[in-house]
Formats: sequence, C-alpha cells, structure tokens
Amino acid sequence: MTRHYNFCAGPAALPTLVLERARDELLDYQGRGLSVMEMSHRSEAFVAIAERAEADLRELLAIPDHYRVLFTQGGASLQFAAVPYNLLGAGGTPNFLHTGIWGKKAISEARHLFGAVHLAASSEENGHSAVPRQEDIVLSEDAAYLHYTANETIGGLEFDYIPEARRPDGTPVPLVCDMSSSLLSGPLDVSRFGVIYAGAQKNIGPAGLVVVIVRDDLLDQARGDMPSLFGYKTLSEAGSMVNTPATYSWYLAGRVFDWLQRDIGGLAAMDAINTRKAARLYAAIDGSGLYANPITLRNRSRMNVPFVLADPGLDRPFLEEAEAAGLLNLKGHRSVGGMRASLYNAVPEAAVEALIDFMADFEKRHG
Amino acid sequence: MTRHYNFCAGPAALPTLVLERARDELLDYQGRGLSVMEMSHRSEAFVAIAERAEADLRELLAIPDHYRVLFTQGGASLQFAAVPYNLLGAGGTPNFLHTGIWGKKAISEARHLFGAVHLAASSEENGHSAVPRQEDIVLSEDAAYLHYTANETIGGLEFDYIPEARRPDGTPVPLVCDMSSSLLSGPLDVSRFGVIYAGAQKNIGPAGLVVVIVRDDLLDQARGDMPSLFGYKTLSEAGSMVNTPATYSWYLAGRVFDWLQRDIGGLAAMDAINTRKAARLYAAIDGSGLYANPITLRNRSRMNVPFVLADPGLDRPFLEEAEAAGLLNLKGHRSVGGMRASLYNAVPEAAVEALIDFMADFEKRHG
Repeated sequence: MTRHYNFCAGPAALPTLVLERARDELLDYQGRGLSVMEMSHRSEAFVAIAERAEADLRELLAIPDHYRVLFTQGGASLQFAAVPYNLLGAGGTPNFLHTGIWGKKAISEARHLFGAVHLAASSEENGHSAVPRQEDIVLSEDAAYLHYTANETIGGLEFDYIPEARRPDGTPVPLVCDMSSSLLSGPLDVSRFGVIYAGAQKNIGPAGLVVVIVRDDLLDQARGDMPSLFGYKTLSEAGSMVNTPATYSWYLAGRVFDWLQRDIGGLAAMDAINTRKAARLYAAIDGSGLYANPITLRNRSRMNVPFVLADPGLDRPFLEEAEAAGLLNLKGHRSVGGMRASLYNAVPEAAVEALIDFMADFEKRHG
Repeated sequence: MTRHYNFCAGPAALPTLVLERARDELLDYQGRGLSVMEMSHRSEAFVAIAERAEADLRELLAIPDHYRVLFTQGGASLQFAAVPYNLLGAGGTPNFLHTGIWGKKAISEARHLFGAVHLAASSEENGHSAVPRQEDIVLSEDAAYLHYTANETIGGLEFDYIPEARRPDGTPVPLVCDMSSSLLSGPLDVSRFGVIYAGAQKNIGPAGLVVVIVRDDLLDQARGDMPSLFGYKTLSEAGSMVNTPATYSWYLAGRVFDWLQRDIGGLAAMDAINTRKAARLYAAIDGSGLYANPITLRNRSRMNVPFVLADPGLDRPFLEEAEAAGLLNLKGHRSVGGMRASLYNAVPEAAVEALIDFMADFEKRHG
C-alpha cells in the first residue's frame, strides 16, 4: 500500500489514521457483526456514533448551546437554495458579499428562486484579489440576512475578519456563511453567525454530507412553500433523521472530529499547523522567479493556494513531474487554470515540504 | 472479525465480498496512492468508476438508451419533492396510488408543495393488505403523472404487476415509481416507466445516494421555480456532477452492481434466489402456530417480511434471543410493531435458513 501526498481541492485528503481505523472496522464495527454502513440509523449503535460526532464537533468549535447542529445531504450547493427558503419567511431581501465563484453560485440560486437580491459588496472590481473591507459593506434597508463565503476554494481568497451584518439603520441581521473549505481549519467564534454551513469533502469527511450550524431563534423564519427536507426546524427536531441520513459519511466525520480533538489536540493546535503550512508555501512562491500568487497578503487562503507559472507552457510538465513524484492533484480549477495546492487539515506538513522541494527543483531545471 | 446475519430494513446488509473489496483498497485505490474518498469527482480515475457503475446498472436492468441514469443525493424522500417539480411544468395534477406509509409521504409532500393531488386508488380500506387492481385505478382528467410505491418497506406489501397509467380519455401519462426497496431484486421492464427512483440503502449501496432513471422526453417538463439541484435535466447534462456527488457511495454502488453481474450472474439469477428466500420464510410463518403475516398472497413482499407473534408478550424474548443467536435487526418498524425480516439481495439464503431454524426452535420453547 502506498499513500501519496494529495493536494486535491475536494473531495480532499483524509487523515491516514482515520482511514486506517475505518478500514479495520469496515466489516465488523466493534464486534457487533456488521458494518456501520449496514446499521439502522435508529439503532442504538448508530445513534451513539451520531451523538458522539455532534458532541465532538461542539467541543472543537465551542458551539454555544443555543445553536443546533444538523447533518444533512445535497452538498453546500443545496444550501444555496435551503438558506433563502429557511430565512425568507418574513420577507426581506437576501444580501450578499460576492468574492468569487462560490459566492456567485449562492447569489444565482437565491435570485433564481426568489428574484431580488442585494449585493452588499463585491471584490469583482479588483479581480477577487482582496475581500471588501467592513466599511465598504452596505446592506439594503430590507436586508433579511447577509451571506458570504469565508474562503473561496477556487480563487484562494479568504476573509481575514468576520463581517458585521447590520442594515443602514443599525438593525442587526443574521450573518450566513458558506464555510465549506475553511470550517475546522482553526478556532471560530460561532456566536457571530446566524447560519454556518459546510460541505464535508474538505475538512470534515467524505462528499455527500453537509454540516449546518444554526442559531435556534432562526428555526421559525421559513417560507411555507419550502421542500420539507430543506427545513432546519424539521431536521433539528428529528435529530437530522427526518429520513435516512448519510450514515457512513456521518460516522467518518465523527472519526475526523475525534482525530482533530485527540490526535491533533484541538483546533488551536490545528490552526498553528495550518498557519505554518501556508506560510511556508507562500514564502516559497514569493521567493521564486517562476511561481506567482495574485492575492493580497491579508486575504491569502490558508486552505487553497493557487499559483501560476511564469510560462504556461510549463504547466503540463509541472503536473506530470509532480504526479510522478507522488504529489497529486495540483491542477487548478478548470475555470481558472494554473495550479492549486489545497492544504486542508489532513495534508501533513511533510507534504508541503515535499511540494516546496519539488517546486524549487523544477524551477532549477526549467526556470 | 464476525459477520452476523443482518435483516435490517435499511440501511441494510451489503454483500460481504463487496465490503472486503472496499476494505482492501480503502487507503489506496489500485495503486494510485489515495482512497476513492479522496479523489476529485472530475478526476480520470473517479470518472471511470462512475461510468463503469452506470454501464453495469444499464446492463443489469437492460435500461433502454432513451433513459438517463442519475446518481444524486437527499434520499428517496427528497424525490417526493423533486418529482412534482420536474413533471408539473405544464400544469396538471399529480395522481397517486396509496398503499402504505411511503406512498403517503410522497402524497403529503406533493400536496404540501403544490396543493391538489388526486388519489387514483388506495388500499387503505383493506388495511394495506392487498394492492389495488388495475380496474380499480381511476386517474383524473388532468393527470400529469401516476406515482406509486412498488414495495412498501414497512407494510411488506408489493405490487405483483406494473400499473397502466392512462387518463379516463385514454391518454397515457408517465408512470413514476418509488422502487427504493425493490429495485435490483429481479429483472424489470424499465420501458414501462417515466421515472424510477430508489434510495441506495437497500439493494444498491450505502445511505446518502439515490438512483433516478428518467425517460429523456421528460427532461423538459420542469417548473421554472424548481431548486436547481432537483433538476433531472441539469443533473443529466452534468453527468450527475452539477456539484460534488456522493463519490464514495457511488463507488460502492458500482461495486454492488459488479457483484450482482459477475458474482451472482445477473438479475435473473438474483431473482431466483430472492424467490426461494421469501418462499421459505413465508412457508415457515404460514406453517406455524405462533407467527402470522397479514398480506394477501399475491402481494407479499419478497424484500420485507413483517410478521407478528400470537402473544406480543413474546416479542422481547424473541428479539433478545434472536440477537444472541446472531440474527440482527428483526424488530418491526416503530410505527407498526411486531417483527420484520428484510431479505434484500445481500442477505444470503443461509441467513434465511438460520432464521427459520431459530423461529421453529423459539416456537417449540415458547409457543
């Protein structure tokens, strides 16, 4: 068995320890004679797995008691629809910060479903190289909530602060955040948010699971015409088991939370590792003559590091030689090209060192 | 490692061979140095897995070329909403056959979202012990489609024929079927249907994946206000990759299709095994003085065999002794009580024999 270094943007690397533990009990979970995949979601054994996962996530993020945690399906993209359905029951206009491709998709879906949206700020004019500053954010008078994308996975642009969400008259509105590619990368003040959601396939577990964290006073704001399974209140009241949940993905997410808490030592420790990894890679890029990253320093993503080669003709040899060296999935998103190294929690510091060494060697030979 | 016999109604038993193959490549898929869970859904390796799964499913069910196969998320329950959104673009009323709890849920969701529904026939008056006959099915003049549940997992009631779906004036309308607990239990004439959908967690793979088979002339019937990810056309055009799909579940489904085709020998062979299993268990129930099943002979489910004990006071000892004997998850659904043995494809004939032996022994000691 070989394990290469995997820089995929998602579905992304999972901790080897987690996969080993999953493998060892894949056919027989703790002597029960069946796989976790084969258990009723309502069985005592699975309910214990599910509750433990939630408890560990709550501990990791210090989630306050008045927030509910949901484990649901459909990807973060389904939340682009579910969020407005859940929050527009009393009317008002969804407000957005637009900082890249994922934010734009969230905006498009809200507009498709409910018409008017308000762009409270955008980084489009600077080519999404710097996020809007707080003073540039202007909500509409009738803002129902403010939605933003904490980290743009494709652009490699990350907020360095949590925005304030207030209407011009000062009334606070719920702050909603797509944290698919940054949740669990470090500590977070959950109490600043109304809704946080994240597709699992970056820092949580396998694709097909979505974690939603919602403040409980927002459970009664839904539109009446909402598809039932979108409903945060319905999901919350049923312990995320309105219908059969993605049980195996939920279990693996729990294994990842356990690894974060007990093998890594919590999110402060994870944060320090992630800061080191990103700093090392950006320093290597900035110190080279071949590689470049266009993002303003304060908004460089710790999780997704896009970079281009001075000569695009070298893209193909770079990728081929990297793959031959066991450095996988460095190709940038098809919409932007270039390279991208995603440095999620499960990517070890040794992988970043190996990548930096390879990049230096490649530059020496081709630069 | 122990593998017990698992009669769970879903998430249900998976073939031991499939789980062993998954375990052996969990950390390193075919020497590529990463898990299937860690692959980009757009990578060459995963696309090959996805295409192979679809090709095998098409071969197993002899799916005609003018049908699309979708691998999506949210459970069959999300399809209770997605079906009307996809098929009511030109107006009309959804028509339903009501034969139990799952059919009722589908009806409730369509009514919740779009108001009027028409009940074309119901088995409610016979306590869902026999499905309506063709001559009892009367569609509305404006029927948009006819929806039914091929096998009611909780009631253990299965259609012994494929209904004709025609308005009173003879106009055919699409037949839509929830086949969550019967798809792949035997050969099927797909060409009779407009839409077939099935949650994976019975005969397909792990929970969190849904297979939809849709006739291509129905891709342009959707309502304009549909959440984008519900759209069969959108999903079809993107190869089910509008957003990140449930990649690992899709891979495991492919492994199950491969097992059905190459280890079992196809659906005719599976059908024969399933017929034997169900016949043996029903014969044991009917021949006993302690156990009883209330369903009309022609509509007894081959996949889910509910039965009650003459003395409900024996329920608890029955379940405890069964579990001690390695016969798991025989408890009936919480809404109906009693027992239920689910005999999905992955439940071997030896499991049924062991159950029958246990039941006979239990009756001798307690009956």
